[in-house]
Amino acid sequence: MKKNLKLGLFGFGCVGQGLYHVLHETRGVKAEIKKIAVKNKDKSRPLDASFFTYDKNEILNDPEIDVVVELIDDANAAYEIVKASLEKGKAVVTANKKMLAEHLEEIYALQLKYGKPVLYEGAVCGSIPILRNLEEYYDNDLISSIEGIFNGSTNYILTKVFEENKSYHDALQKAQELGFAESDPRLDVQGYDAKYKLVIAIAHTFGIFVKPEAVANIGIDRISDLDLKFAREHNYSIKLIARAFKVEGQVFGFVIPQFVEANNSFTAVRNEYNAVQVEGAFAEKQLFIGKGAGSYPTGSAVLSDISALTYDYSYEYKKLHQGTSLDFSNDLLVEAFVSFDLHTPISVNDFESFKSGYAANGKEYMVGQVQLTKLLKWHNEYGAGIILAPGSTFVARSKKQAAKNVTLV
Amino acid sequence: MKKNLKLGLFGFGCVGQGLYHVLHETRGVKAEIKKIAVKNKDKSRPLDASFFTYDKNEILNDPEIDVVVELIDDANAAYEIVKASLEKGKAVVTANKKMLAEHLEEIYALQLKYGKPVLYEGAVCGSIPILRNLEEYYDNDLISSIEGIFNGSTNYILTKVFEENKSYHDALQKAQELGFAESDPRLDVQGYDAKYKLVIAIAHTFGIFVKPEAVANIGIDRISDLDLKFAREHNYSIKLIARAFKVEGQVFGFVIPQFVEANNSFTAVRNEYNAVQVEGAFAEKQLFIGKGAGSYPTGSAVLSDISALTYDYSYEYKKLHQGTSLDFSNDLLVEAFVSFDLHTPISVNDFESFKSGYAANGKEYMVGQVQLTKLLKWHNEYGAGIILAPGSTFVARSKKQAAKNVTLV
Repeated sequence: MKKNLKLGLFGFGCVGQGLYHVLHETRGVKAEIKKIAVKNKDKSRPLDASFFTYDKNEILNDPEIDVVVELIDDANAAYEIVKASLEKGKAVVTANKKMLAEHLEEIYALQLKYGKPVLYEGAVCGSIPILRNLEEYYDNDLISSIEGIFNGSTNYILTKVFEENKSYHDALQKAQELGFAESDPRLDVQGYDAKYKLVIAIAHTFGIFVKPEAVANIGIDRISDLDLKFAREHNYSIKLIARAFKVEGQVFGFVIPQFVEANNSFTAVRNEYNAVQVEGAFAEKQLFIGKGAGSYPTGSAVLSDISALTYDYSYEYKKLHQGTSLDFSNDLLVEAFVSFDLHTPISVNDFESFKSGYAANGKEYMVGQVQLTKLLKWHNEYGAGIILAPGSTFVARSKKQAAKNVTLV
Repeated sequence: MKKNLKLGLFGFGCVGQGLYHVLHETRGVKAEIKKIAVKNKDKSRPLDASFFTYDKNEILNDPEIDVVVELIDDANAAYEIVKASLEKGKAVVTANKKMLAEHLEEIYALQLKYGKPVLYEGAVCGSIPILRNLEEYYDNDLISSIEGIFNGSTNYILTKVFEENKSYHDALQKAQELGFAESDPRLDVQGYDAKYKLVIAIAHTFGIFVKPEAVANIGIDRISDLDLKFAREHNYSIKLIARAFKVEGQVFGFVIPQFVEANNSFTAVRNEYNAVQVEGAFAEKQLFIGKGAGSYPTGSAVLSDISALTYDYSYEYKKLHQGTSLDFSNDLLVEAFVSFDLHTPISVNDFESFKSGYAANGKEYMVGQVQLTKLLKWHNEYGAGIILAPGSTFVARSKKQAAKNVTLV
């Protein structure tokens, strides 16, 4: 009943090579790599030269190839490959979160137009099968929120900061040495990577397409030594949390660091591990923990998509068709710790409800309830450090009522 | 494309009523309850009397009913209902773990014979979608082990013991008062409930059918105050762990309490929550946490199965067909803390490798590496208390080599 699939790969980096190994040690998936398109002619490769091509059309125009596996870095080039592959009647597997986040609505439309599926489990939280669970298992559930640790590099850095008493910069350097953070770590530490994943998850959780630009992301790169001192004194750790939740017809979503208490389930999610918590009306809290990055975990997720294609699986985007149209909004009050240089134009009056303040060594700290959009402005324009309060309560502004008491497990 | 399903329910207790509510507040599942067979004519019911029948044939012989949802307590009667339903060409959803554990091989054969599916996600760890994940997502993976906290009542009791400094008996009583433990708690506290779930999970993890009698279960009911004192002094907690793992063609599986260290992920799984950790060659460790019991979590899992039937889903039991035949074995060395009354015929020489001993107040304690079958005999015949060492290493006897270093997350 299962099909035998012939694969054309684009890219043969870390994940591509992971996939190659996983595929060769696994029974039960009837798929083989026919051709691999790569860019650099001079690199030495662990496979016979006959596998490789430098011309994308050798894959796109090969009628024998059923599935294009897109594993390159460049998001724009990746989108062109996905589009061309669907036009040529090929199914696609990709793990390119940036490309997906930016083009998900078009990719959805292209799947309908050409009748071929695009699967991308490897794009969201590596080995955690979150998209399939959202698609298959929670289609009957009334999901109220999804939140978690979506980025392995920053979680590795934050773990080392707390467990080995390192500064942010020392921990980042260590992570880079070990290959857990890129030499240009901005996508990770500024929260973009987590945001791309969140945008994809929002589509499968709430059935709406949101542009990455509409979603706030504040990273961990402005966490100061004083923030760390405060956390240690209170026995908190800091986690970079991506979350989205629904309040009366509106969906809110953002990526912001947060203090978490010691007995919080996210505290136990250490190093390069990711976690996703889904909260539904009936199943209540479901927590998934697994490796968020690395060639094998991601290669294994990609292989799982290939395996699903052998029985003609495709995402149904069920929530898109369930009749409720939800709006995405940033009109939200959040409780935050804000740190900034003296003389920055941030004042007590900017807070809806001011809790406490403190100034020392040329720095000022303010804690209170404040508009999400203001936080973002302070962060982007004044370089302010932002960390959410532990067990934050979020208030949906437009309705002026207590909206969502997010209590992490 | 989706079918409209008409359901016939057997039983309308806690889970049945949970299902009824979940079904009525959910869009997207095209299913309605047509008839509910119950036993007791005198009970008052929250639904109109026309829904109820006292004759099972009213459901079995109704050609309009597509799906039988079996939610009664009695395992033997439940099996007869499943059999009769399949014979009548109806699909079945059940959450009866005892019945499934005892009859899984027959139920597999009956599904093949009559061409109708039996789904039972609600039987294993309540709201955690573990069976579907094992079936769908890990079919391409080389799974080496599955382990976890499979029983909510005992986890609730053990949580209270440690967090509120209660004795085992006080915590049990509290759990019973709150409805987290049955008035006859033996199935839970002696590890049978967890074992039934493990037997079902083994079929979907390793593709073999094991009889419950073949699987060792040691419960938490002989945990003494001295065990608790020892745990507290070492900052351990105790969890009732169900696990199965594969070593060179053999599968080992058992349910035994274990000391776990404070930074272990299972430590953070509190109260009535369950956890399942799957370890594979490539995806590495995946941890699922969710509510293990209760009418809504189980009702939601049952509804998820009903929803899956609307698009003709059935378990494929893929691992059964993947060519490797594995044997189940108990020929294993484990590292355990054994406590027993003075003058019990247990001696240092019984241990393969003896670590330490201690005697006080008429009790003796011995710690060391010992055969699993001996432990079981000591527990069943002499009433010895058994707790596995934290981070236990298990040694498969027949091969006489270090087999499996089970390090919980």
